[in-house]
Amino acid sequence: MSGADIAPLIVLVRPQMGENIGATARAMLNFGLKGLRLVAPRDGWPNPAAKAMAAGAAEVIDNARVFDTVVDAVSDCHLVLATTARHRGLFLPVHTPQVAAETLRTEAHAGRRTAILFGAEKSGLDSNEVAQAHGIINIPVNPSFSSLNLAQAVIVIAYEWSKAKGTQPLFESEYDDTPASMGEVDGMISHFIALLDQAGYFYPDHKRVVMERNVRTLLTNASMSSAETRLFRGMIRQLARMRAD
Amino acid sequence: MSGADIAPLIVLVRPQMGENIGATARAMLNFGLKGLRLVAPRDGWPNPAAKAMAAGAAEVIDNARVFDTVVDAVSDCHLVLATTARHRGLFLPVHTPQVAAETLRTEAHAGRRTAILFGAEKSGLDSNEVAQAHGIINIPVNPSFSSLNLAQAVIVIAYEWSKAKGTQPLFESEYDDTPASMGEVDGMISHFIALLDQAGYFYPDHKRVVMERNVRTLLTNASMSSAETRLFRGMIRQLARMRAD
Repeated sequence: MSGADIAPLIVLVRPQMGENIGATARAMLNFGLKGLRLVAPRDGWPNPAAKAMAAGAAEVIDNARVFDTVVDAVSDCHLVLATTARHRGLFLPVHTPQVAAETLRTEAHAGRRTAILFGAEKSGLDSNEVAQAHGIINIPVNPSFSSLNLAQAVIVIAYEWSKAKGTQPLFESEYDDTPASMGEVDGMISHFIALLDQAGYFYPDHKRVVMERNVRTLLTNASMSSAETRLFRGMIRQLARMRAD
Repeated sequence: MSGADIAPLIVLVRPQMGENIGATARAMLNFGLKGLRLVAPRDGWPNPAAKAMAAGAAEVIDNARVFDTVVDAVSDCHLVLATTARHRGLFLPVHTPQVAAETLRTEAHAGRRTAILFGAEKSGLDSNEVAQAHGIINIPVNPSFSSLNLAQAVIVIAYEWSKAKGTQPLFESEYDDTPASMGEVDGMISHFIALLDQAGYFYPDHKRVVMERNVRTLLTNASMSSAETRLFRGMIRQLARMRAD
């Protein structure tokens, strides 16, 4: 079984609007999750509204499996986590999405299938459904304003799952951030001071030492990259040429 | 200036649909962000559709400030990060949301105001807009399916900002997960073995040693909490009573 095959399943329990199922499919696929299971969807299955909303994520909808109960939906899984926004006095550990993602990743490495339960749009999971999980995932939102919709909650969980694989951004910067060596910085500063001197900047002469030190401090602390020191020298060289014309 | 005051500003550049501005306000407030700035919103401002969509996050919409240019919108900020999905050959470092959040948090601790730029719904930020930032935030999505909408992108960034404060879930578990001591485990096992013995489980007698060892292995490896050993002993005690009746 490949790593991709054992990504966590997303299980929507009693989902209502087909549009929300479709939006969930899109949310999942953004972070590489493809396995969608539905427990007793209110409007039956297949649901044209779900397919329409899913758009480019139609494959997730087409491959979704439907079950009557949570137990049936997770019978082939080894670890089940329930996403809930409220405390229900259950005898279960409560994890942040980040900790949950690490746990799911550990199971995936061991070749075990996992599932994440999400409840119905308004009501969420009921206590008996949560009790079928090994643990709770709680997204820490603003206690005085908690309004994540189903797809947004899936985004956060799927994002953390995806992150647990590694934390590289999608594209590499062309920014060459090799820090300038002290020699490069000193060469640039000496170059600049020489040009400033030609331009008559160090006046009056008894302030020259302080003025030079200020130039040096400014450019030493500018955190320039090696490439930036060359860029800067090109700019001041050109400025000095203009003055000479 | 309090920590709350210097949370990053969310700057929407040339946003189109009022509904998306409202959804962004909701996304922000879920993770405690309240400072919204708009650069040249297509449909003017105020926008009734934005207010309607924001619902409980109306305060974010009511306090939003509108500017003509990105430069105007971020003139009082010390660090500006631009959210982009594409590479543009710019001379800027590229960060994941997590790294960006840590950078923003460092600035906030130092009392400096920060801003995060988000582009228009379809087109995103143009290169000149990105060039006004100190760095790029790239959300690592599925390269073959990238469809996060504006509010969903804000969710991911705001979630990471919120996380950088700490990673506690919203509610504490009532689950007492203090692991059982070896003494508690042994007491439970001895209790169980004694009851099983009374029940005639260890038969035939020459298998008793192996059978006891299997019971011991099973319960030693069950990773029970201290509370769970007491729960288990209560259950087997009750089972043994039933048998005695």
